[in-house]
Amino acid sequence: MAIENGDFVKIEFTGKVVETGDVFDTTSEEIAKEADIFDDKKSYTPLPIILGGGHLLEGLDKAIIGLNEGDSKVVTLAPEEAYGDRDQKLVQLMPAKEFKKQGMTPYPGLQFQAEGHTGKILTVSGGRVKVDFNNPLAGKTVEYSVVVNKVLDNDEDKIKSLIQLHYAYPNLDVEKTALNFDGKTVAITLDDITRFDQKSYMDVTFQRFRIAKDIYENLDYDNVQFVDEFKKPEDKPEDKPEVKTDDVAENLEETIENSEE
Amino acid sequence: MAIENGDFVKIEFTGKVVETGDVFDTTSEEIAKEADIFDDKKSYTPLPIILGGGHLLEGLDKAIIGLNEGDSKVVTLAPEEAYGDRDQKLVQLMPAKEFKKQGMTPYPGLQFQAEGHTGKILTVSGGRVKVDFNNPLAGKTVEYSVVVNKVLDNDEDKIKSLIQLHYAYPNLDVEKTALNFDGKTVAITLDDITRFDQKSYMDVTFQRFRIAKDIYENLDYDNVQFVDEFKKPEDKPEDKPEVKTDDVAENLEETIENSEE
Repeated sequence: MAIENGDFVKIEFTGKVVETGDVFDTTSEEIAKEADIFDDKKSYTPLPIILGGGHLLEGLDKAIIGLNEGDSKVVTLAPEEAYGDRDQKLVQLMPAKEFKKQGMTPYPGLQFQAEGHTGKILTVSGGRVKVDFNNPLAGKTVEYSVVVNKVLDNDEDKIKSLIQLHYAYPNLDVEKTALNFDGKTVAITLDDITRFDQKSYMDVTFQRFRIAKDIYENLDYDNVQFVDEFKKPEDKPEDKPEVKTDDVAENLEETIENSEE
Repeated sequence: MAIENGDFVKIEFTGKVVETGDVFDTTSEEIAKEADIFDDKKSYTPLPIILGGGHLLEGLDKAIIGLNEGDSKVVTLAPEEAYGDRDQKLVQLMPAKEFKKQGMTPYPGLQFQAEGHTGKILTVSGGRVKVDFNNPLAGKTVEYSVVVNKVLDNDEDKIKSLIQLHYAYPNLDVEKTALNFDGKTVAITLDDITRFDQKSYMDVTFQRFRIAKDIYENLDYDNVQFVDEFKKPEDKPEDKPEVKTDDVAENLEETIENSEE
């Protein structure tokens, strides 16, 4: 069945700049390594998205509509459909001493973060630094080759794909998610390992909110619950046969006990 | 009814060193201010505890057994029933340069933290610093005056008192806790404000574990769940009459939307 807006799909893709042929993003580990953009903190698996859900560039989203599972397509996007045109106002002069205050020595080509934006230094002269805050892909025509890896057809898979998309905990095993459906309520218990996340509770709330929002806007639920469960340990027999040290849940009590001074 | 082990009670207390009369801990804001130990991060309310649950010094725990709601008692505890005897091995010589590496100038009387222990500098001479790692109350006979403020008699109050005891989120309003009882399972939804906790998720897990453990060891439940709920917003009428800016839950969607770049 042809894919339409609101469908949950997994896609493989590779994006490159038409002008230079440089690959800037891909779901393939092999291609990432070839292109020298491999990042060991990224997982190279098909990307789960909701068509029309704002997870992809609009032009790319549209190109997938009408395809079927297994189809592939190459789509070329002009700057206005991709990363926008370059904006000359985003090229700014900054005093070199601002960089030195931060312990940085400015030189052409250096990229840095400032207030959530990435700047790239173009030139340095006479104590003044010319910085380009445009997205490096602004003004470029880009080409994506896309493969529709899978069209998801049940709520369990769809919800798991949203967890995979939004939950930035690297060790999460999405297959260890327990889902409980009760009318218009879905209760989600994530892989136990996520309870040991070092991120702030607030950041986790934001991730969960994005999952919940995608669920109640695209599926037939109006209440999304995240449940952390603590069970009373079973009474243990006198001599334990073995200790499963690879099971975090089983050892939760012990782990936490030991952490209390 | 006389209090026994396992009872949930709220107590007011003031502890002082017998020898000097110095107050070192109290649940009374007025007494804390008088004694010049007032800490604005502490909440001066009756302390919820489980008798025999290890929340108090053992000597103090025992002194409360047999009392009734409203009773008061003064109890004197020898060092071995209170903070232990002084241990001369915990008085150590450290090189002054270790302090300077940390940007500290050592002087007699200075207190500092090292690997979870509090050290107090006794003397500084010839590049050597004599530090006492004993608890400042070690070796002291202490006197507590205790009032049994309340004996809790239902599970809802008992569970709320455990949240108050273990959940170190200063803005938490324990009365905003929603409890759902279903057989041997209790589901706890905390005050929405706790979702914006800046602490790590792992630290929150440890707090929750302590609450859960106190519940399943002292009450008749074997499964304790912490639930974070995200509800689909109701469709809003065209012209909103007013915005309730004091309601975090209502504005959650907006708050989080705005945080996404």
